Amino acid sequence: MSSTVSRVGAAYDRIAAVDRPEIWIDLRPPAEVEAEARSIDERLASGEQLPLAGRLFAVKGNIDVHGLPTTAGCPAYAYTPESDAPVVARLRAAGAVVLGTTNLDQFATGLVGTRSPHGAVRNAVDPTRISGGSSSGSAVAVALGIVDFALGTDTAGSGRVPAAFNGIVGIKPTRGLVPTEGVVPACASLDCVTVFARTLPEAEQALAFMTSPPTRDLPPLPQRPPGPWRVAIPSPGQLGELDEGWSEAYEAAVARLRAAGADVRTLDLSAFTEAAAMLYEGAFVAERYTAVGSFIDKAIADGVDGLDPTVTGIITRARDIPAHRLYTDLDRLAALRTRALTELADADALLLPTTPGHPTLAEVAAGPLGTNARLGRFTNSTNLFDLSALSVPSGEVNGLPYGVMLIGPAFTEDRLGSIARLLEPETRIAVVGAHLTGQPLNPQLLSLGARLDRTTTTAPVYRLHALATTPPKPGLVHVGEEGGAAIETEVWRLPAEGLGRLLTALPRPMTLGSVELADGTAVPGFLCEPAALTNAEDITRYGGWRSFLNRG
Amino acid sequence: MSSTVSRVGAAYDRIAAVDRPEIWIDLRPPAEVEAEARSIDERLASGEQLPLAGRLFAVKGNIDVHGLPTTAGCPAYAYTPESDAPVVARLRAAGAVVLGTTNLDQFATGLVGTRSPHGAVRNAVDPTRISGGSSSGSAVAVALGIVDFALGTDTAGSGRVPAAFNGIVGIKPTRGLVPTEGVVPACASLDCVTVFARTLPEAEQALAFMTSPPTRDLPPLPQRPPGPWRVAIPSPGQLGELDEGWSEAYEAAVARLRAAGADVRTLDLSAFTEAAAMLYEGAFVAERYTAVGSFIDKAIADGVDGLDPTVTGIITRARDIPAHRLYTDLDRLAALRTRALTELADADALLLPTTPGHPTLAEVAAGPLGTNARLGRFTNSTNLFDLSALSVPSGEVNGLPYGVMLIGPAFTEDRLGSIARLLEPETRIAVVGAHLTGQPLNPQLLSLGARLDRTTTTAPVYRLHALATTPPKPGLVHVGEEGGAAIETEVWRLPAEGLGRLLTALPRPMTLGSVELADGTAVPGFLCEPAALTNAEDITRYGGWRSFLNRG
Repeated sequence: MSSTVSRVGAAYDRIAAVDRPEIWIDLRPPAEVEAEARSIDERLASGEQLPLAGRLFAVKGNIDVHGLPTTAGCPAYAYTPESDAPVVARLRAAGAVVLGTTNLDQFATGLVGTRSPHGAVRNAVDPTRISGGSSSGSAVAVALGIVDFALGTDTAGSGRVPAAFNGIVGIKPTRGLVPTEGVVPACASLDCVTVFARTLPEAEQALAFMTSPPTRDLPPLPQRPPGPWRVAIPSPGQLGELDEGWSEAYEAAVARLRAAGADVRTLDLSAFTEAAAMLYEGAFVAERYTAVGSFIDKAIADGVDGLDPTVTGIITRARDIPAHRLYTDLDRLAALRTRALTELADADALLLPTTPGHPTLAEVAAGPLGTNARLGRFTNSTNLFDLSALSVPSGEVNGLPYGVMLIGPAFTEDRLGSIARLLEPETRIAVVGAHLTGQPLNPQLLSLGARLDRTTTTAPVYRLHALATTPPKPGLVHVGEEGGAAIETEVWRLPAEGLGRLLTALPRPMTLGSVELADGTAVPGFLCEPAALTNAEDITRYGGWRSFLNRG
Repeated sequence: MSSTVSRVGAAYDRIAAVDRPEIWIDLRPPAEVEAEARSIDERLASGEQLPLAGRLFAVKGNIDVHGLPTTAGCPAYAYTPESDAPVVARLRAAGAVVLGTTNLDQFATGLVGTRSPHGAVRNAVDPTRISGGSSSGSAVAVALGIVDFALGTDTAGSGRVPAAFNGIVGIKPTRGLVPTEGVVPACASLDCVTVFARTLPEAEQALAFMTSPPTRDLPPLPQRPPGPWRVAIPSPGQLGELDEGWSEAYEAAVARLRAAGADVRTLDLSAFTEAAAMLYEGAFVAERYTAVGSFIDKAIADGVDGLDPTVTGIITRARDIPAHRLYTDLDRLAALRTRALTELADADALLLPTTPGHPTLAEVAAGPLGTNARLGRFTNSTNLFDLSALSVPSGEVNGLPYGVMLIGPAFTEDRLGSIARLLEPETRIAVVGAHLTGQPLNPQLLSLGARLDRTTTTAPVYRLHALATTPPKPGLVHVGEEGGAAIETEVWRLPAEGLGRLLTALPRPMTLGSVELADGTAVPGFLCEPAALTNAEDITRYGGWRSFLNRG
C-alpha cells in the first residue's frame, strides 16, 4: 500500500514538475505536511477508520485553513484564521491532507481566473487559454494531478466554469448544504462551497464529508415520478451563440443521454438566462459591496498594492445602488424563479453547456467584462434560483476539454450524479476468437454488459495464429500491409467498466490493444504476447477463427 | 449497428447452444419474433425513438404475455391472456422484444427453482446446484446471455435469490411501484414484479420502463441526512449459520463499502429474521390459498397431472388456518415492522448476504421444505415490511457466484443502486514506462482516478526494450525464467471504468495484458505488440525505465 507520506512526497514533486506557480497562494511547508501524513499513517496502522486517509486536497484562497493566511486573492486583505473553516475541518478529520491555498479571481469576483495579483491561472490543457474562475487554482491543481480533490466556491458559476475548462468534475451543492462559515463572502446569500475532482465518484465521496452534520433537519424531497430520468434541454435556438463545434458537442451529449434511455424533453430557457443577466447587471451585485466594500474603499484611499482593478471597479460601482432597486429586482427574480421552477417541474434535470465558449487569456485581457459576462450565461442563475448543479467532462472540442452541466432542484445532488453517469460513453472491443458469438467465452462478454455492434474484418494488416491455450484461442498479430490479411472480427459495445473488468480477468498470453478495422477506424481488441507465437500454426489463410474451426 | 433482427437470430442460436430446455415454458416462434424485430428496425430507421430497441427479454410464466398461455408453472391452470400484462406492454412499447415465458416454482411458491413439472432449473454456473427460485428460468436465461433482461416476481425473495445464485443483478422494487395486473398472485398483498439483468445499469434502465406512469402521486421521500452513505450490518452472530466461505465473502463486501467511504454501523437484525419465519410458518401463507386454493382443491379431486406435490401441500395446508390467527400475526408483524424501521432509521440501507447458502439439486430433493426455509432467512421479511431491495454479485465463493442484498426504505431504489456501485471492486494496473510517477503520461492515469498502490518489480521473467514511440516508451516482454529479469514496476489502483477508458485510448504498439509481479500475483499491465520489438534496444540490464533514462 502506498502510504500517505509517500503520496505527499509525490505531490510536491509534481508541483515542481508542472511549473505552474500561479496555482498557489500559500503552500504548506513539505516537512509539516509530511509530519501530518505520518501521523495519519500511524493512526491507520493502529486500526483507526479514516475514510479519506491518503487523499490530498487544495483549498481556494477564500476559505480558512489553520496555519495559512486567508487572502481572498488580495494580500492586503489577509487575516490569520484561528481555525479551519468547518468544511476543511471535516475533511481533515476524515483523514484528508490539505497542501495549501489556491489562487482565485480576487474576492471570488469573476469567472475567468485572470483577476489576481498572483497571476492569471493558465488552463491545464492549453496554457494560452483561461483556466476559468473564480476557483482557478483549485481546478488546475486537480486537473494536473497534484491533488485528489479541491475546494472551490460558487456564486455565479465559479465551481463549474473552471471544471468544464480543465476537463474535471465540479459539484455545486445546494445552498446551505455545505457550511460557509470561515469563507470570505462574495454574495453571502448565494455562496456555495464546491468540490472539484477528476472523477465523479471521487467528487461525491469528498462532498459526503463536506455537508452539514446529520442532526440538521432537512425538508422531505418531492419524490420523482417513476420512469426513466427526465432531462430537459432548451428549445431550439435558446442556447445563443456558442464557440465553434460546441453546439455539435452539446448535441452529442443529448444523444448519449437518449441512447442511455433518458427521456429528453424541451423547456423554455428564457427565465434562466434573464435571471443570469441580473446577477451583475442588477442590484444583487451590491451584496459584494456589503461583504468587502468598505475594505476596498479604504484600500484604494490608502493606495495599497495588489488590488485587481476589474474587481474593485465592479464592487465599488455597486456602492450607490439604491435599496429600492433591490426590491424591484427581488420581485422580478421571484417571478422568474416561479417560471423557471414551473419549467423544471416535469424534469429531473436541465442539461446545458457549462459555458458558451472558452476564451484565450488574450481575449479576456482585451475585454475583461464582456468575456466574463458571456461565460456566466448558463451558470449565473443557478444560485439565484436555489438549485443544485454539477459540471462533468463531455469529450473534447478542438483539442480542449468540453463540459456540460446538469441543474436540478435543491438537494438533488445524488440524482444529478446518477444522470451524469448516463453521459459516460460506451466503449468497444474487437473479438476474433473464443469471444465470438457462439464461441465458449462469448458469455463472458455478455456478463459484462456487452452487445454485438457489427461483424466486419480487420484492416488487411494482420496474421492469425492458433495458440496452444485452453480453450483454444487465436493470436492476432499486426504485420503491416506486406503479408497482412483481413481477419473476421466482431465489434461489441460495452460499458468502460465492463472493458476494465474484462482486462482484469484476462489470462496470459492474451493481451488487448488497438486493432485496425476494415473501415480504417481502430478499437481495442484481442492480441497476444510475442512468446505465444512460438510454434503456433499460422491460420491466416482461413480468414478467421470460425472458418478455421469449421475446416474439413 | 447490429439490427434487432440479427440479435433475435443470435438469441435463438444461443438457446439451442446452451441446451437448457427447462428454462422455458413457452418460446415464441422465431419467425414471429423476427417479424416483430424487423418492424422495430424499420421504426428506428424512420426516426422513431424506441429507448429499449434491440433489447430482448424473457417473462416469468406467471405474467401475461399476449399470444402465449399463462400457466404459473401448472399446465392445468393455463389460460390465454387477452393482452400483455401492463408491465410487459410498457417494455414492448419502448422497443424491447419478448422471447417467451420462463419456468418457475409452481405458483411462485418456493425459492429453489426445482418445484415445476417443466423440470428443475439447473444453475447457470454449476448444473448440479439449484438455480434458485421461484423466478428460476428468467434468472438463468439472463445469466447464460440469452436475453438482456428478464421479469420475475418476488414475494419471499424470488427476484433476489436466483439473482445471487446465478451471478446477476435482481432489483425488487417497492410494493406497488410496478403494476401487478396480469400477474398470477402468490400473496397478492406482497407480490412485486422484479427485473434481472447482468449489470446494474441495464436492470435500472429496464425498471425505469416498468414502473407506474408518472401521473401517480407518490408520497414525498424523507430526505437522508447529508454525509456518506450509511450502511447497516447485523450485530455479530446474527447472520446465523452460513455456507463455508460465505462469512468471509460477506466481510469482504463490508470492507469494500468501508474502503469506498461508506459509514458502516450495526443494527439488531432480530425483527427481520423473526418476521421472515412468519411468512410460511404463520397465517400469511393463507393468502396463497386465497389466490389458487380452490383451483388446486379441484385439480387434486380431478386427479390432473402436473401438480407439484410440495407446492400443493403448502397451499392446501393453508386452507384451514383460522382468521383469528391472521389477526394475531398481523399484530405481531406490525410490532416487528416498527422495530425494524426503527433499526433502519439511522441507515440508508441494510447489507445482508442474499441467502445463507447455496444447496445442490440433490440436497433440495432430500429436504424440500427445510432447504427452502433456510434460503429465505434474509429475504422473506422485505415485502412484509414494505421495503425496497436489490441483489448484486459480490465475487465468488468456491467457484460459485456470491450475492449480497441491499434493503432500504420504500421508494429508495435509486439510492440502493448508488450504494451498490460502491461494492464494485477497484482494479489495478502495472506500469513500467511513460506512466510511472513523474513520467509524461502519468497525468493520464491520474485523470482516470488512479492512485499509486506500491512500487515493486515484475517476477524475474521479463525483458525490457526501448521502443521507437513518441513519447519514448519501453516494451515489456515475457520470456520466462530463462533469461528473464525483474523490472521496476509501479502498481496503481483505479476504477474498472478508468481501466476501460485507458485501454480505449491506448495507441499501437502498446498493449495491456496480465503481468506477473515479484510476489507471485498478476495484475493487468503494459506490454507491446511483437512487431514493435524489431530493432528495439534491449535495456533489461538497467532494471527499469527510469534507470535507463537516467543512464550516464
